[in-house]
Amino acid sequence: MIIKKLLVATWLASAATAAGAAAPTLADREKALDASVSAPEQMAWLKQMASAPNHVGSAHDKANAEFLLSQYKAWGWDAKIEEFEVLYPTPLSTTLELVAPKPVKLGGQEPTIPEDATSANLKDALPPYVAFQGDGDVTADVVYVNYGLPQDYAALARRGISVKGKIALARYGGGWRGLKPKLAQEQGAVGALIYSDPANDGYATADTYPNGGGRPSTGVQRGSVADMTTYPGDPGTPGTGSIKGARRIDRKDAVTIMKIPTLPISYGDAMKIFATLGGPIVPDNFRGALPITYRTGGDGKTQLHLAVKSDWSLKPIYNVIATMKGKDRPDEWVVRGNHHDGWVFGAADPLSGNVAMLSEAKALGQLARAGWRPSRTIVYTSWDAEEPMLLGSTEWAETHEAELKAKAIIYINTDGNGRGFLGAEGSHQYQHLVNQVAADVKDPQTGASVLDRARAKLRADAFDGGRVDAGELKAAEAGGDLPLGPLGSGSDYSSFLQHVGVPSLNIGFGGEGESAGSYHSIYDSYDHFVRFDDPGLAYGAVLSKFVGRVVLRIADADTPPVRFTDLATTVRMYLGEVKELIDSRRKQDDKRSALIAADSFRLASDPQAPVAAPVAEAPTPVIELAALDNAVGRLEAAAKAYDAAYAAKGASLDAGKRAKLNAALLGIDQALLIPEGLPGRDWYRHALYAPGRFTGYGAKTLPGVREAVEERRFGDANLYAGRTAAALDRLSAKLDAARAIIN
Amino acid sequence: MIIKKLLVATWLASAATAAGAAAPTLADREKALDASVSAPEQMAWLKQMASAPNHVGSAHDKANAEFLLSQYKAWGWDAKIEEFEVLYPTPLSTTLELVAPKPVKLGGQEPTIPEDATSANLKDALPPYVAFQGDGDVTADVVYVNYGLPQDYAALARRGISVKGKIALARYGGGWRGLKPKLAQEQGAVGALIYSDPANDGYATADTYPNGGGRPSTGVQRGSVADMTTYPGDPGTPGTGSIKGARRIDRKDAVTIMKIPTLPISYGDAMKIFATLGGPIVPDNFRGALPITYRTGGDGKTQLHLAVKSDWSLKPIYNVIATMKGKDRPDEWVVRGNHHDGWVFGAADPLSGNVAMLSEAKALGQLARAGWRPSRTIVYTSWDAEEPMLLGSTEWAETHEAELKAKAIIYINTDGNGRGFLGAEGSHQYQHLVNQVAADVKDPQTGASVLDRARAKLRADAFDGGRVDAGELKAAEAGGDLPLGPLGSGSDYSSFLQHVGVPSLNIGFGGEGESAGSYHSIYDSYDHFVRFDDPGLAYGAVLSKFVGRVVLRIADADTPPVRFTDLATTVRMYLGEVKELIDSRRKQDDKRSALIAADSFRLASDPQAPVAAPVAEAPTPVIELAALDNAVGRLEAAAKAYDAAYAAKGASLDAGKRAKLNAALLGIDQALLIPEGLPGRDWYRHALYAPGRFTGYGAKTLPGVREAVEERRFGDANLYAGRTAAALDRLSAKLDAARAIIN
Repeated sequence: MIIKKLLVATWLASAATAAGAAAPTLADREKALDASVSAPEQMAWLKQMASAPNHVGSAHDKANAEFLLSQYKAWGWDAKIEEFEVLYPTPLSTTLELVAPKPVKLGGQEPTIPEDATSANLKDALPPYVAFQGDGDVTADVVYVNYGLPQDYAALARRGISVKGKIALARYGGGWRGLKPKLAQEQGAVGALIYSDPANDGYATADTYPNGGGRPSTGVQRGSVADMTTYPGDPGTPGTGSIKGARRIDRKDAVTIMKIPTLPISYGDAMKIFATLGGPIVPDNFRGALPITYRTGGDGKTQLHLAVKSDWSLKPIYNVIATMKGKDRPDEWVVRGNHHDGWVFGAADPLSGNVAMLSEAKALGQLARAGWRPSRTIVYTSWDAEEPMLLGSTEWAETHEAELKAKAIIYINTDGNGRGFLGAEGSHQYQHLVNQVAADVKDPQTGASVLDRARAKLRADAFDGGRVDAGELKAAEAGGDLPLGPLGSGSDYSSFLQHVGVPSLNIGFGGEGESAGSYHSIYDSYDHFVRFDDPGLAYGAVLSKFVGRVVLRIADADTPPVRFTDLATTVRMYLGEVKELIDSRRKQDDKRSALIAADSFRLASDPQAPVAAPVAEAPTPVIELAALDNAVGRLEAAAKAYDAAYAAKGASLDAGKRAKLNAALLGIDQALLIPEGLPGRDWYRHALYAPGRFTGYGAKTLPGVREAVEERRFGDANLYAGRTAAALDRLSAKLDAARAIIN
Repeated sequence: MIIKKLLVATWLASAATAAGAAAPTLADREKALDASVSAPEQMAWLKQMASAPNHVGSAHDKANAEFLLSQYKAWGWDAKIEEFEVLYPTPLSTTLELVAPKPVKLGGQEPTIPEDATSANLKDALPPYVAFQGDGDVTADVVYVNYGLPQDYAALARRGISVKGKIALARYGGGWRGLKPKLAQEQGAVGALIYSDPANDGYATADTYPNGGGRPSTGVQRGSVADMTTYPGDPGTPGTGSIKGARRIDRKDAVTIMKIPTLPISYGDAMKIFATLGGPIVPDNFRGALPITYRTGGDGKTQLHLAVKSDWSLKPIYNVIATMKGKDRPDEWVVRGNHHDGWVFGAADPLSGNVAMLSEAKALGQLARAGWRPSRTIVYTSWDAEEPMLLGSTEWAETHEAELKAKAIIYINTDGNGRGFLGAEGSHQYQHLVNQVAADVKDPQTGASVLDRARAKLRADAFDGGRVDAGELKAAEAGGDLPLGPLGSGSDYSSFLQHVGVPSLNIGFGGEGESAGSYHSIYDSYDHFVRFDDPGLAYGAVLSKFVGRVVLRIADADTPPVRFTDLATTVRMYLGEVKELIDSRRKQDDKRSALIAADSFRLASDPQAPVAAPVAEAPTPVIELAALDNAVGRLEAAAKAYDAAYAAKGASLDAGKRAKLNAALLGIDQALLIPEGLPGRDWYRHALYAPGRFTGYGAKTLPGVREAVEERRFGDANLYAGRTAAALDRLSAKLDAARAIIN
């Protein structure tokens, strides 16, 4: 560590000296970035920040914010803490016990594991709970609902099983956590439990902690169940910042708070409940890895007592905001963020990403100390209260919405990080930039570029029979750019992208570590992280080098390095998918009708375990997509023309044209916001990307149309095909205007 | 039961009385068959025959043969027992124990379950073992090899794991049992264990016995591991009948006997072994449902002692052969069979099928007593020693090969039967007949025809996302005939079809019962069967009605009801599959080479759990298929012409032409036998159907070509494309000759 620091200092000194002769190039700055990033330093930060529970409202959460503030300041950043006051319920009591067939106590805090140092330090930790569930006290029978998603309830209904008046027992996975109590309450359940099946992150995936990183039988995944799919942030201040004293809606009117008591449980506890369940054997896709015949329950023999009582007081949260003013374009912002609050110790989630971000900030500070200033303003943000529902970033973005709309070029997010492969999602005009950086950053385990490693993974997985996205595989085989994934939700980019219209990226490494097994539990610790998730934080260092490059290349570019043809091509692909969806839905509708008419479902069903026909549905109609199709065509043409013009003349623009062009591009993505918002959830405005109403974290693209088709809201499908077309047309017009400046 | 008997007797009496006025029609005979079949009677037979262990050499096996003989005789059949003397090893001692990391005794007899009456009656039962394993005494480390098939060893090799000098632990399923020790010994293993994973037939599929029909943790699947894929029957008399005193090859020269000691074990025991295994975590498709992280083992920490010693003396077996001579065509035989030996009590396998056959024989006897005689000779056969390797049927067919070639029209097989859906496999010229019968027989649970129920199952499963064969689904959707499956091996049709060239059918019901959980264990009992497999033997009765119709319709037809276009269409489809196989292989070969060249497998691999590149292979060459393609074309034309001629004039042939035509059709399938036999296994001669060399029970169609491509024996592929074409041409020529008789 000392040697590395010396080398950096030497280089910086010589760079500074040389500056007089020839200004350091971007390549020089990236070399300095690489030299400054220290994995051992990240390990030290991680150990300190993850040394005590740091959930919202905890002493160590505030201490971490203050530590971050002091670091940014020490590195020369203009840093401050922006405080908000948010609704954040914490459990006063959680009760879970089997009453019948015989009494068994369940639930409670996860136990200390001797090999995991911080698991003995639970004084300030909260017991397993899910934030924004609905307090209550119920005793009822239990029904196992698999992932608790719409298709699961449909499968249960065909077997004559309902959760009405019962407690829904769902397993984690398949869709976002918060959908499980939401759909359970819509189905009439009086309570909900969510457990971690060993098939998903336990012994089926890895040896269990502490022998391996897999979730032990006592591990519990905490989390938020606020209805993110309607709006994130403080349930009491939708669309506005919850600064101290802000006007708040009444808690009972906050639609994103659940109505039924809900707790997360371990598979050790779940096994005890399953052992009591009767009813039919579950459909195959409901089965997990517990050593038992999974049954639906609901036959009245089980009685479970579930009670949760919370402290619903407002709590302060601490966003750390650090700014480095741009020398040429101070009113163009590159915003970079990662949250700092965890559920308990939060080593992997979020601190592994936060310490990587710290390394970037330190390197940029050192560059600045050596004489460099960014062309644009760089804003590093460390969010509080991401875990309960993106509170820190959402309240900040809502508070600063106008300024962000006027100034923000891009928001670049990271979150928990680990060993493995590059994952990158975001606004597709930045797809080529991300690929360029991926070609320049080396994977620490193989020495290949992280891009080549990602390509190899796609190709080898496909060869070995793994499920691989066809488009990604095609790109990997062609050796071209890999596509960015679309952004759904689950981290702090959501407000920037989907509410304010700031292009966003979300970047991280993973796939080889075992942090799934500690996710949101007390075992997400430093010990777990350095043994099983990213030993030596090799990938923490890579993340810093990667994102540091993205920041530098955007902040110092004459004009942001965008390529709109990538966006247009992607939208064309999405439209193709929606067309296929409509066709396949219609075919499926016809098939269903034919099978119902032929009584095929009854004949196919085992009379000893009957499965009724699915509910009949009228055929999916033809949707009016012509305007949308034309708008995509117009966007393709406008994007192609803009990119060609910039490629031809972009490097040689005079200062006046440059300023006009940059002004024209700033905020161009806001064209993609639909003023009315998406159907039933007007906080979400982006025409291209949204968290799925029934997937949650998973993105839905062209959501106004796609989800309307999926949910059989055919009027909405026609309406939003038009609104989406109008958004694309606005973007095309702005691109045409930008191109006109160049020519 | 008494009432039903009275009704039958009444009908038969009136039919006999009426015979003077108008001869009973086929429909009358089928009505009499239905009236005679009694499920309660089948239950009584089943209870008696399954009351004691009836494996080869047991007292009750012989008693069952004598009981069957007495029944056939009582019903007026010309019945006898044909005895053979076969090599059939029985275990003298079986030893299994963990030596390291600490001593644990494993293995031994399955325990009594109070709810299962016969499980207390184990005096004459053999302990769990597999017949024709290689005696030995070894102590070695253990490697888990998944299903123990070639692709599993390839996956292990890529992870640096070998079974050389170790004991292979395989799970049942994925391919035929006997392949597991065979491939293990080829890979250098010194011993093998085969266990029943709960994912395959235990708690993952049903509640475990006695709560449900699923395999309990103590249940063990016995079975034969003789190398069926080379030849079935007595290992000492390949190709000839093992009548008493027959010439035998030396035991050490019998290639179908395994060389390494092998035992089957329960998952209770397997769990104790898995708990000791280190090494890498297994590939996903190796995982079963045990509550543990599956690892490969092979790291030297486990030591297992495995020893088997057998009595290799010859044992007598008792085939029951009952004949009803045909009145018009006594030298044309319809042969019907089901075996009677079980591994222990054998209630489901085979007695459920045998008692259904008994009902048919009784009904035919009653018809004969009422004055009817079949046009052709009907031969009912109840085989002994099917379980150890189709010994009874194979030795009989080899003994009577010349007579069968001269006289046998068809062999119709059944085996264990259960609740659920029709399953039918066999020679495709009988596809339409089977469908006609399926349209005429009612499913007892739904009242629909078993054909309509089978069609509904295919369509509903496909709608609900199940894996359904595309050809079968298309047929079901069109409402046409459902395709017969091709015959591989695993029951007594093998010699008839694949060695002698007698067209064969194999018919049974299943899919809703839970007999998989008792298969080949002491729990395959009357109690298990009537609770979980076919309560009330409703499907036993249906099987009798179904197969009885097939027998009657063939035995009394003027000319066997065949439709060769179905055969030709099926062969055309097989050829299409082989062409696709060759193309996809070549593409896969190219892809593999490209990925190896790009080092993609290394880059994609987790360095902490490395997976090396697969072995490089030269591209699959173009195979010479023109002659085969032309031969299929010629067969299509010949079949179409024959079927058209018969449809036009078949009903009005004079006696002379009829006799000539029937003579021309008798033995016509022998044209499809390849004189040289299949590559490396000349006992198997059929050009269209064979048990797969690496699937076992599963059929390979056009096996000489298809398997040669799969196994990269490209010389064989070219050679057998020609030989298969020649076989098809011979059939076409015979069809042309038969057509000429009609015209």
